[in-house]
Amino acid sequence: MHPKFKPPYLGVAYYPEDWDKAEIDFDIAKMKEAGINVARIGEFAWHKMEPHPGCYDFGWLHEVVDKLGAAGIGVVLGTPTATPPRWLTVAHPEVLLLYNDGRVNHGGRRHCCSNQPLYLEASYAITEAMAKEFADDENVIGWQLDNEIYENGIGCLCEKCQERFIRHLRKKFGTIENLNAAWNLNLFSQAYDRFEDIPLPVNAWVNPHHLMEWKMSQNQGHIDFMHAQADILHKYVKVPVGTDTMPKGGFDYRELNSKLDIIQYNHYNIPENLHETCFWFDALRPLKDVPFWNTETATCWNGSEFTDQSIKPENFCYVNSWLPLVMGAEANMYWLWRTHWAGHELVHGSVLDSSGRPQHIWGEVQKTAADFQKAGDFLNATKVKADIAVHFTSLNYYMWESQPIVADTQYQPRMYTDFYRPLIDLGLRPDIVDYAQPLEGYKVVFSPMMMNLTEKGLSERIRKWVADGGTWIVGPLTDIRNENGTKFANKPFGMLEELVGESWLYGIPDMVGNVTAAWSDGEEFAGNRYYQVFEADSDALVSITGGHSAINGKAIVLKKAYGKGQIIILGSFPSYKDMQKLYKLVLADAGVPTCRTPDGNIMVSPREGNGRRGMMLAEYANKGGRFCLDEPMTDVLTGRTFEGEIELKPYEVLVLEA
Amino acid sequence: MHPKFKPPYLGVAYYPEDWDKAEIDFDIAKMKEAGINVARIGEFAWHKMEPHPGCYDFGWLHEVVDKLGAAGIGVVLGTPTATPPRWLTVAHPEVLLLYNDGRVNHGGRRHCCSNQPLYLEASYAITEAMAKEFADDENVIGWQLDNEIYENGIGCLCEKCQERFIRHLRKKFGTIENLNAAWNLNLFSQAYDRFEDIPLPVNAWVNPHHLMEWKMSQNQGHIDFMHAQADILHKYVKVPVGTDTMPKGGFDYRELNSKLDIIQYNHYNIPENLHETCFWFDALRPLKDVPFWNTETATCWNGSEFTDQSIKPENFCYVNSWLPLVMGAEANMYWLWRTHWAGHELVHGSVLDSSGRPQHIWGEVQKTAADFQKAGDFLNATKVKADIAVHFTSLNYYMWESQPIVADTQYQPRMYTDFYRPLIDLGLRPDIVDYAQPLEGYKVVFSPMMMNLTEKGLSERIRKWVADGGTWIVGPLTDIRNENGTKFANKPFGMLEELVGESWLYGIPDMVGNVTAAWSDGEEFAGNRYYQVFEADSDALVSITGGHSAINGKAIVLKKAYGKGQIIILGSFPSYKDMQKLYKLVLADAGVPTCRTPDGNIMVSPREGNGRRGMMLAEYANKGGRFCLDEPMTDVLTGRTFEGEIELKPYEVLVLEA
Amino acid sequence: MHPKFKPPYLGVAYYPEDWDKAEIDFDIAKMKEAGINVARIGEFAWHKMEPHPGCYDFGWLHEVVDKLGAAGIGVVLGTPTATPPRWLTVAHPEVLLLYNDGRVNHGGRRHCCSNQPLYLEASYAITEAMAKEFADDENVIGWQLDNEIYENGIGCLCEKCQERFIRHLRKKFGTIENLNAAWNLNLFSQAYDRFEDIPLPVNAWVNPHHLMEWKMSQNQGHIDFMHAQADILHKYVKVPVGTDTMPKGGFDYRELNSKLDIIQYNHYNIPENLHETCFWFDALRPLKDVPFWNTETATCWNGSEFTDQSIKPENFCYVNSWLPLVMGAEANMYWLWRTHWAGHELVHGSVLDSSGRPQHIWGEVQKTAADFQKAGDFLNATKVKADIAVHFTSLNYYMWESQPIVADTQYQPRMYTDFYRPLIDLGLRPDIVDYAQPLEGYKVVFSPMMMNLTEKGLSERIRKWVADGGTWIVGPLTDIRNENGTKFANKPFGMLEELVGESWLYGIPDMVGNVTAAWSDGEEFAGNRYYQVFEADSDALVSITGGHSAINGKAIVLKKAYGKGQIIILGSFPSYKDMQKLYKLVLADAGVPTCRTPDGNIMVSPREGNGRRGMMLAEYANKGGRFCLDEPMTDVLTGRTFEGEIELKPYEVLVLEA
Repeated sequence: MHPKFKPPYLGVAYYPEDWDKAEIDFDIAKMKEAGINVARIGEFAWHKMEPHPGCYDFGWLHEVVDKLGAAGIGVVLGTPTATPPRWLTVAHPEVLLLYNDGRVNHGGRRHCCSNQPLYLEASYAITEAMAKEFADDENVIGWQLDNEIYENGIGCLCEKCQERFIRHLRKKFGTIENLNAAWNLNLFSQAYDRFEDIPLPVNAWVNPHHLMEWKMSQNQGHIDFMHAQADILHKYVKVPVGTDTMPKGGFDYRELNSKLDIIQYNHYNIPENLHETCFWFDALRPLKDVPFWNTETATCWNGSEFTDQSIKPENFCYVNSWLPLVMGAEANMYWLWRTHWAGHELVHGSVLDSSGRPQHIWGEVQKTAADFQKAGDFLNATKVKADIAVHFTSLNYYMWESQPIVADTQYQPRMYTDFYRPLIDLGLRPDIVDYAQPLEGYKVVFSPMMMNLTEKGLSERIRKWVADGGTWIVGPLTDIRNENGTKFANKPFGMLEELVGESWLYGIPDMVGNVTAAWSDGEEFAGNRYYQVFEADSDALVSITGGHSAINGKAIVLKKAYGKGQIIILGSFPSYKDMQKLYKLVLADAGVPTCRTPDGNIMVSPREGNGRRGMMLAEYANKGGRFCLDEPMTDVLTGRTFEGEIELKPYEVLVLEA
Repeated sequence: MHPKFKPPYLGVAYYPEDWDKAEIDFDIAKMKEAGINVARIGEFAWHKMEPHPGCYDFGWLHEVVDKLGAAGIGVVLGTPTATPPRWLTVAHPEVLLLYNDGRVNHGGRRHCCSNQPLYLEASYAITEAMAKEFADDENVIGWQLDNEIYENGIGCLCEKCQERFIRHLRKKFGTIENLNAAWNLNLFSQAYDRFEDIPLPVNAWVNPHHLMEWKMSQNQGHIDFMHAQADILHKYVKVPVGTDTMPKGGFDYRELNSKLDIIQYNHYNIPENLHETCFWFDALRPLKDVPFWNTETATCWNGSEFTDQSIKPENFCYVNSWLPLVMGAEANMYWLWRTHWAGHELVHGSVLDSSGRPQHIWGEVQKTAADFQKAGDFLNATKVKADIAVHFTSLNYYMWESQPIVADTQYQPRMYTDFYRPLIDLGLRPDIVDYAQPLEGYKVVFSPMMMNLTEKGLSERIRKWVADGGTWIVGPLTDIRNENGTKFANKPFGMLEELVGESWLYGIPDMVGNVTAAWSDGEEFAGNRYYQVFEADSDALVSITGGHSAINGKAIVLKKAYGKGQIIILGSFPSYKDMQKLYKLVLADAGVPTCRTPDGNIMVSPREGNGRRGMMLAEYANKGGRFCLDEPMTDVLTGRTFEGEIELKPYEVLVLEA
Repeated sequence: MHPKFKPPYLGVAYYPEDWDKAEIDFDIAKMKEAGINVARIGEFAWHKMEPHPGCYDFGWLHEVVDKLGAAGIGVVLGTPTATPPRWLTVAHPEVLLLYNDGRVNHGGRRHCCSNQPLYLEASYAITEAMAKEFADDENVIGWQLDNEIYENGIGCLCEKCQERFIRHLRKKFGTIENLNAAWNLNLFSQAYDRFEDIPLPVNAWVNPHHLMEWKMSQNQGHIDFMHAQADILHKYVKVPVGTDTMPKGGFDYRELNSKLDIIQYNHYNIPENLHETCFWFDALRPLKDVPFWNTETATCWNGSEFTDQSIKPENFCYVNSWLPLVMGAEANMYWLWRTHWAGHELVHGSVLDSSGRPQHIWGEVQKTAADFQKAGDFLNATKVKADIAVHFTSLNYYMWESQPIVADTQYQPRMYTDFYRPLIDLGLRPDIVDYAQPLEGYKVVFSPMMMNLTEKGLSERIRKWVADGGTWIVGPLTDIRNENGTKFANKPFGMLEELVGESWLYGIPDMVGNVTAAWSDGEEFAGNRYYQVFEADSDALVSITGGHSAINGKAIVLKKAYGKGQIIILGSFPSYKDMQKLYKLVLADAGVPTCRTPDGNIMVSPREGNGRRGMMLAEYANKGGRFCLDEPMTDVLTGRTFEGEIELKPYEVLVLEA
């Protein structure tokens, strides 16, 4: 923990390069008034730090850091590599991203290629200069590398990206013969004689395996760039280093953060899709032992040259500010403190408007700041605890992106709506886990839409974990591709039939409801889009009731024993109602209590640590909701004690300690 | 007035280059039969006038002009610069427009760049050759420069356009430091070291101020081109020179027409959006003392390689032909006389079809011609008179285009539907005025969506006009940007708070109806998309009733006294009903009678001049409608006398003289 | 007929290059089990046949052909020219298609330009090598050239395509002056000084005549490529050669197949649009005396990287497999036997899935195979016989593509819905015929939407055929363009007024129903989109009842006698109901029985030949339907005898012999 500035942090992004000194003093005074204790600065100010190549000017930045520190506001410093100055791209236009419709121009952000040596060289130089300059600054509580780095669609197509791709393929496949064989390139006479002959994955009916590897290679370029910056900073600074990323399923956040110290995450979800943010918090929390930072969220609305958003309901800002902490973070930071007076994001929500007057959520910000302080002691002592794990991996993300199998079946949105939302609405807190997360300690593991199971020996680890007594829900469309995204040429699954026997019959797409099905208790099962059909036996939980004589009576959900554990095969995309029914069946069996939030609406987060125990509850649907306490608990925000069934008001937050 | 051909003119576009001599003789005879007294010719016939560079052939054109004149048909000659011949672009391909997706090819129209010297040189040469050739031709009643020149999206991206842009910026900002400061280019490290380093506004998240200046620079290129052509013609010809333009809000029609003699305008609106044409007639009329020409409109439908339009109701052609004259023009011309038999616009409506047979609207054209003659004396003596002015300027158009603030809020369509239509439906005739129009003589001035008020000292002139007793309706979203399109860094408005005090609180977007409001009489106010929220006081006309505790009870429409005048602040986009309610309130107060058209449906145009006085009424909704006359008047078309409440039949036109 | 393998054929596409030898043996054994008697192989395996330029390896292919033959399965060999190997395009990147948005990359199919000499040279070499290798192979029953060759949008824009286009224009027009005159290029100063100055038809408001010729030139490039391949094969092989094409109206299938021996066609229609496939079968059948092959259809669904299709109803696979044979084919082949385990089309329907397990339609495939054998004798003896011809030509397709006249009026889909479907639902079997088909023998000929009638003297042949007693339905929008797609400059029709007199008045677009009309018996006529209005007389079948005083009372459908025949002018797009009413009127008059399928739903195909006579009936709507037999007939599939009104079950097929 930082010696001077203690979490929890309520922070803001601030752009002192935007304002003259009088306004900066005004702003810092207002931050104090609001209760802000962290400011993120510097991320886009490369030109002001290095107005000419190699000529640095950090005086203005020191002045701001000093003033903030003096006001009791810790500083997160950003390396400004997302916004290289024009002098770089005028001298070396080749460092600009090369998209398929042309070379990107200067003027926005992230317009340079992470594989271009001269851009990297300039980036590392400014990073090192900053690192040296602020290495021992006691007001700096952490660093942020770059800003929202991620692959944009197919990404950059420059020569250096192509070179990286060739290296990536060479490393993965060794010889071109191996690649031809792995991708079945006899087909369509696609076979290559040399790695160098493989074209860019554009302007063609692109091979899906080719496309998948390209996307992974692009991704790795960004990761390498972040790692190199982290290495530089680690030579000089002791406070944690991270990079603020967005909800991009393609990123391997484990790999990205492997050389970083703290996970930083930006979210811009709104009341209607706030559960998506929860998904990501549940996914980031397990990756490191230290709490993560929510580095950006909007106070009131998003907006660039225009906004299509609306004023949010009373107290949404309050509950949204709490949400990261409920889910395991130690910081929530707003983007941004004061709306720019010129440039790109003129109508974005903020704490102060451009003219310096408070936005209408000023009161909610102040209340958040005060409540954070009240809960700090409990939060710093305890951690979130989950019984259930749901798999979600970047390799599978890329696989779904390159071969979506059935229409309207993107991996990330389907995870949100079909599998995650029905679970949290039962009052449960899952970890969203990747290929490497140990399974020990979880009572139930769910691997939906996980085409490939073989990353780093995962399938063997699952097999062992089930054999030892775990309950594994598998499917739909899990274990059907190898690590290259191809099918198995003579069997339908990678390992599933070894565990449950050869019962698989057909894969049936159905967009229009031709197929009907029912639970074994007779209730209708409303599957959709795809049916994996299995030979029926006594373990069928759901069977087909109509569609074609070849499939009628066959099973689509079935339960099989394996070792001391059991395997529940889910062979279709379930309705919300059917998914909850399956969860209740399986979780009850595995000893996990469900149904603690009869209305949904409440984010539930059990916490324990340092001999203390409790639970955070956040009503996040603006409808109110009930929760059933097992034992009496006290809300550290108000001192009130609760027991039994309690009611939360819309957007209410309780920090309960047993 | 032309010595030989007197207005009002009923004209047609004609393409003699399309037809052999026998067909031309046939066509001219039919024009006479129809009552046509003007033909627009020559606009696309460059190649026939100059088949090889520098070799002119005007014989065929003289022959046609002579034949038309002999038939009593005056001629408007077009300079053919919209359609440069292939010999120019084969020799100099660089003169072709360079769009972001490639260089434009020969074959259509307006395919050359207004900033390319060799295209300009060739254009000026053909213009001068024509001017000399027809300088003293008594059958020529006027000239049209080019055809429908305007900026197409982002426009041309050639080197010459980029050079013009750099000159434009250099002229406006002087130094690159000034530009960096004006646009706040510290942000995102956007700052430029030299004007030459500013890229084209494409392939980037383009800075809105950059984008706005680019569009204005493109626009000015077209204006300079037209001015240079006008200068050439003015050396030789005495009849009026104009250029036929389209309803493009980005054009500064005042600047464009400053060197031209007559405003020419083309409209292709249909029954469903005819009020948009009225808006433009109201906008063009005030710019010059001489009546304008409606140079193009369809007789029956538009169509290029295909049409998606339908046969229009009986007498629509008749009322549409009258509309320009109702609104202050002295000419209405059809596009086109006879549909082409080959090429691009094979299914466009006309007077004769390609085979020379009359279209079904033949009778309506003949009746129009006859009625024009009956009304000529009264029309030539009088002019339209308006009490109300509504602001609409090209600078603000570009500002909205580059930073639309809230979704679904384009300046031009919003002007039509939200502010103009509710006004004319009350039976009122406004002038749509730009930054330079003197305000003296208007009882009410309305400046909606006028982000910037500072053009050519306008804000000071408004302040003085209000102080002297004017009634000014201001907003929504008026006076919130300086001339560069940036916000004011420490105040929300440019001058408004100096006039009404610092009462502004918040700007609230709302696409979904979270905010509710009511008039002070309790009636609901149905605002939408954006709320400018002010501290409430006794002058509140409309207050917020729900949305967020910070805004509840605050004002969004309020009335403030200033000097001898008053200021009505409109803080949201009103519904049609609410806008009419505000108009009635304000206009009654300012002594302007409203509600003379209880059904809407009627375009009302008071006229006076040369000691004569009257009023033109045109039912333009095809539903019939009533009008309340203050005094008895006589219809010069039929000799009938009317008084009190009169009823117009669908598409009826009355030319009433007191 | 092939000495070893007799039709009817039930075939599959098979890709032995996909699988190892054990799987191939497994697959062939399963084919036998399913009743498959033909396999299409080789079409995409160029790289495996010629791994390096000029080095051939056909051993693996011989082995597969031999194994198939030994299993009683005949082989259709494909020339692999749709998938040139990477070695060709690495050495000669210019052979890759050049689209307007860039050069196509290797990796998919048909990525090379049919006008590039080096691609053609390599294609002809592999074709000749294959031809020599398999010239006398008794197991080969036919050849397929390339795969699904057709023009993709505007097509390739490479230098060689441009050169072909210039040659095409020079050949058609002789001199540039002729072209300028034919296309009326005085207009817009479009005139060209040299053929070489005519630009590519992109990046412009392209002249429609220019566009039409470009598309025809592109088309001819593909045809020439196929003809050259056919010439090579014909030097070596005796079995029939064809090329499997798609339903592309732009192709002149007569010209394409003029050097080929057998028409091959691929269809991927689904239950909802199966009548479109019937249209094409009716169009392809008349082109050659020998029965055609349906070379591809899906067993259960289409799918590339994903599918948006659904499981099809029980027995759809069965009836869909029969449909080509009902319509005159001797072969139906599935695409594909076994779904690829890697690459592009991972989720496409098949007979076996990738893992080698049967798809759910396995039983339907087996039943099809068995029933084909039962019907073989009758099918091989007889041919389909039609009384009615409906015109549809590729020139008119291109004309409609380049100038669609009215919105929502594409030639091909309109043919399906407006003219073809109402006819077949009456239980009739038409031939869809092109410009060259002899009219003798038809009782009724219908030429809808046939803008141009002059191809190869067709209009004169129609005139004579009508004079000799034919009944000709003409229109809407027929005979209104010359062979260049321009109008006639001084008459509305090419020859129609010479036959029926000058009664044409107006052409009226109407998207919204402003125009109303009625049959002479008073029943409403629901025309749409366009009205060709004629002077009314006693022969008016349908007259306008409202819309505009100039057209009210005029005729839009009328009947005129000419010689011994009659002409029915159809002046609008009819509703389904109105089209059927007109068919019934006209066909009854011409002695063609209608209404034999009171429910629609049944495809009816009368057959005769070799002294045998009968009728095939296929219920293809999955609803069941009735048919009225004139005489008792026996179903050769079941031996049942039928007479009078019979009922077919959903998707039932009857092969009835008198």
